[in-house]
Amino acid sequence: MKKIINQPENYVNEMLEGLYIAHPDLITYTNDDLRCLVTANKKEGKVGIATGGGSGHLPLFLGYVGKGMLDGCSVGDVFQSPSAEQMLAVTKAIDSGAGVLYIYGNYNGDIFNFDMAAEMADFEEDIPVESVVAGEDVASAGPTKEGEKNTRRGVAGIFFVYKCAGGAADAMLNLAEVKRVAEKAADNVRTMGVALTPCIVPRVGKPGFNIEEDEMEIGMGIHGETGIRRGKIEPADQIVDEMLEKIINDIPYVSGNEVAVLVNGLGATPLDEQYIVTRRINQYLKDKGIKVYRYYVGEYATSLEMAGFSISLLKLDEELKGYLDAPAQTPFFVQL
Amino acid sequence: MKKIINQPENYVNEMLEGLYIAHPDLITYTNDDLRCLVTANKKEGKVGIATGGGSGHLPLFLGYVGKGMLDGCSVGDVFQSPSAEQMLAVTKAIDSGAGVLYIYGNYNGDIFNFDMAAEMADFEEDIPVESVVAGEDVASAGPTKEGEKNTRRGVAGIFFVYKCAGGAADAMLNLAEVKRVAEKAADNVRTMGVALTPCIVPRVGKPGFNIEEDEMEIGMGIHGETGIRRGKIEPADQIVDEMLEKIINDIPYVSGNEVAVLVNGLGATPLDEQYIVTRRINQYLKDKGIKVYRYYVGEYATSLEMAGFSISLLKLDEELKGYLDAPAQTPFFVQL
Repeated sequence: MKKIINQPENYVNEMLEGLYIAHPDLITYTNDDLRCLVTANKKEGKVGIATGGGSGHLPLFLGYVGKGMLDGCSVGDVFQSPSAEQMLAVTKAIDSGAGVLYIYGNYNGDIFNFDMAAEMADFEEDIPVESVVAGEDVASAGPTKEGEKNTRRGVAGIFFVYKCAGGAADAMLNLAEVKRVAEKAADNVRTMGVALTPCIVPRVGKPGFNIEEDEMEIGMGIHGETGIRRGKIEPADQIVDEMLEKIINDIPYVSGNEVAVLVNGLGATPLDEQYIVTRRINQYLKDKGIKVYRYYVGEYATSLEMAGFSISLLKLDEELKGYLDAPAQTPFFVQL
Repeated sequence: MKKIINQPENYVNEMLEGLYIAHPDLITYTNDDLRCLVTANKKEGKVGIATGGGSGHLPLFLGYVGKGMLDGCSVGDVFQSPSAEQMLAVTKAIDSGAGVLYIYGNYNGDIFNFDMAAEMADFEEDIPVESVVAGEDVASAGPTKEGEKNTRRGVAGIFFVYKCAGGAADAMLNLAEVKRVAEKAADNVRTMGVALTPCIVPRVGKPGFNIEEDEMEIGMGIHGETGIRRGKIEPADQIVDEMLEKIINDIPYVSGNEVAVLVNGLGATPLDEQYIVTRRINQYLKDKGIKVYRYYVGEYATSLEMAGFSISLLKLDEELKGYLDAPAQTPFFVQL
């Protein structure tokens, strides 16, 4: 296991200690628990936005707490949900009378605990809580049918939901309105990923799966969930085309649409490759008449040291553009 | 070779095409050459700052061109120097009458070409050019003796030289003064790295060296240059202690000093591990009575998909603090 760590059981807490040391102007913690991370700049009267999830995905989830985005994050062990108690502690700390919106990824452990935390917040603390669940990985399930639950995994596209909801909350919209904006972003984002290598959970000490030296897996999830196809590594342009075809046929995106694009490295893939991917996305979307309003390229949601990347598209309207463009400052994301 | 690329010979130009697509508000190119990258926001009357070097180190070198830092960068093939002609083209494009400062790493190819470009700029274009060479890797050679040339490699610490010089130029200091500030930063920065895995140059197609599954190499350079010691991987705290001891005994840093710290991921090492390292650096420096003014953590100078990290310390005075704190906006670095 090629990792620069101490005892695997201290991995998450030592990482958090480092985070608080490096970013004291932006983040702190509540409840005497390093894993209950909250903004150091609480804005009175604003709807609080909380997220949470397992560790191992930095900058996701906690890295987007700061100004103009999220207000708190409960932090789980690697690839494990935090507890409902931790979520509640964060909720209490970030509420300033306007209520709290939960935005989190579509995973059973997180859903169960966030639902419980929302109930406790409401009944025990009288804090109104609403929830938006992000699930936009087109490789993980088919489109959601009318009246049915979304069973898609939440992956890097949650960044767009955070950004738009964060912008709306910062503009002092009320809880119902911030939720509406978050839902609109969640409904209009689609993601697909490809993995070249597995990653190693520190406590486990060995890869979660094997993949041959010349193979890739299209559609793999950020915890190593099985994708839709395994095959020989192909040229970058061909991989991008396959992923984008799946994505743009899903919402669908049509000629004349405007989108924001997120090219996300999964951990070990150099930025160079992410920009080679960006180049092809631009060609592909231009050919389809889809206009790119803004690009984001880099590591936004990783899977430890996994090699690979994902592409997320957010279909925009004027309202989402405004919130996407709003300034934000967090340990991992700064936009002027 | 697990890479998301097309033809290896197109690697650098396709990466650059992606960069210009993603960041049109900050960067563009001159001389009809993608590899002659310049700021899209030229500030009249300001000293221009140019850098350059081989590809494969993103965000280094080109990623720090923008507002408040660098004005131009000539881009070489992977791990290869750009040409003197490309450096000259960048120099001409960014000069606005106040002259140009070159800041680059201490490598023979770069020195040769930048010296030639400086001569051409002076004789053929009447542009005054000064140069500051960053060489701060304590693992690569002993301290420079009075009157001798610095033979140390330049690595991640050049970020601090860019930042301080960029701040000075943005404050409209003249060429001699900007050079003085850059030299002060270069003289007061020290770096050391550790590598866990090799990287693969796309055109070569195989690793530049081998390293066993349980080994690390302390002091390795960002092109895979031999370090000072190879051994079994140790706990993070032990690795940090060994590196910091080398670093702080070099300038030397003494109790009461203030420093800025850069924890730099080499490519494949997760942010989690970089923060675990940050935690230990903080403990170690506290014990020595050295105060940390500011932390920077993340990928600042990589070596393709190499796993490992480096630590850089910049010894500060009030002047350097001021330029370090100045705002900057580049594709890869934003500071408010």
